[in-house]
Amino acid sequence: MTHRSVYIVSLGPGDPRLIALHGADVLRRADIVFCPETKAGSRSADFLKKLGVNESRIRCYQLPMNKERAQAYAAYDRLFEEVVSRYSQGECVAVVAEGDAGFYSSTRYLSGKLKNAAIPVVRIAGIPAFIAAAASVGLPLTEQEERLTVYPGRIDAEMLRRVESGGEVAVVMKLSQCEPELKRLLRSGENSMWHYFENVGSHEEFYTCDKEQIAKRTFPYFSLLIIKSV
Amino acid sequence: MTHRSVYIVSLGPGDPRLIALHGADVLRRADIVFCPETKAGSRSADFLKKLGVNESRIRCYQLPMNKERAQAYAAYDRLFEEVVSRYSQGECVAVVAEGDAGFYSSTRYLSGKLKNAAIPVVRIAGIPAFIAAAASVGLPLTEQEERLTVYPGRIDAEMLRRVESGGEVAVVMKLSQCEPELKRLLRSGENSMWHYFENVGSHEEFYTCDKEQIAKRTFPYFSLLIIKSV
Repeated sequence: MTHRSVYIVSLGPGDPRLIALHGADVLRRADIVFCPETKAGSRSADFLKKLGVNESRIRCYQLPMNKERAQAYAAYDRLFEEVVSRYSQGECVAVVAEGDAGFYSSTRYLSGKLKNAAIPVVRIAGIPAFIAAAASVGLPLTEQEERLTVYPGRIDAEMLRRVESGGEVAVVMKLSQCEPELKRLLRSGENSMWHYFENVGSHEEFYTCDKEQIAKRTFPYFSLLIIKSV
Repeated sequence: MTHRSVYIVSLGPGDPRLIALHGADVLRRADIVFCPETKAGSRSADFLKKLGVNESRIRCYQLPMNKERAQAYAAYDRLFEEVVSRYSQGECVAVVAEGDAGFYSSTRYLSGKLKNAAIPVVRIAGIPAFIAAAASVGLPLTEQEERLTVYPGRIDAEMLRRVESGGEVAVVMKLSQCEPELKRLLRSGENSMWHYFENVGSHEEFYTCDKEQIAKRTFPYFSLLIIKSV
């Protein structure tokens, strides 16, 4: 007998208290949980241990973190083979993704391969980092008729113009990819509040809305900005 | 002795399995949980019962659901008085919000009043409906460098143009406020896929990406669209 589905489980922003009940439940009863590891280690594996998942059921796979996608795809091809093998043996298989697995997550490549192989996939939603970031400091993210736009690593002056003319809130992710441009805009952004977050949900969490401080930071991978008109 | 904070707890999209562990934990140990009720009843109260919160600790307050904000503000003013009274007696007080409490939630009015009264507020993040909607049908929401824009009840032809020219995914919420305009755009939207959801996370959940079917629906309050280029 095989399990009905492979589970793609969203971990949320990194704080084990912010995973959905359903996600936690699946991870605790899965026979094996695959999680990504980079040269810097595995944030996901640490998360799973804090959640009470036994180490013997956690399996890390190397995921290269760079803009060259061929290496990441090769890593997912290897992961796919292992997932299919475990699934075919009847095991309950889970694969984790940080944040929400449908929101800028490379696990879609794996999901696509599983669907093509006629293996049912259940994806469990999670809290995106920008939602957790706003909550962590009690910041109302969007109100009434405000639009919200998420910019993943690519911005231009138009982004700030739209925020400052009112009616739009901007969330900028992957800040390290647009750091010089953002710092230029920061100086001209007189009619906007900039809320800067690093490593939301982890012990290294950092927040400031002081523009001088933001200008001095080197933006790490897990950082984001919420920009609102004043 | 009084409790340290008043908790504003996000319930997520409506499926009790999709609340964050932290939110569920607070609701289960709170002395009193305030939740909104409209003429149609209280979805939140049903949610709390399914989560195992004892009925004796659930307290509904009337929240008028219309564009006239004065009535809603009056309801929050009354709620504020009750929250402060319970909090001052040392009780653990929680107030719930559907979806995420920072994302188009009128609870920000209550949070603001509590902060002005120097009462500490802890807001617990939740999964927004559009994130859960995409997960429920295995739809990748955003990929790589795609922007995401959320339109709450107000759209124009520019919205569709931006999606169809590529690089942007649109989420439209509060569909009942822009139903005729959306249906006009639907007919001209030849280079976009429309994913339509009603009541995500509840028993009345409905999904279709068939434009003929979408055109025939009357959009209820809890409906949303995810529009992607093809």
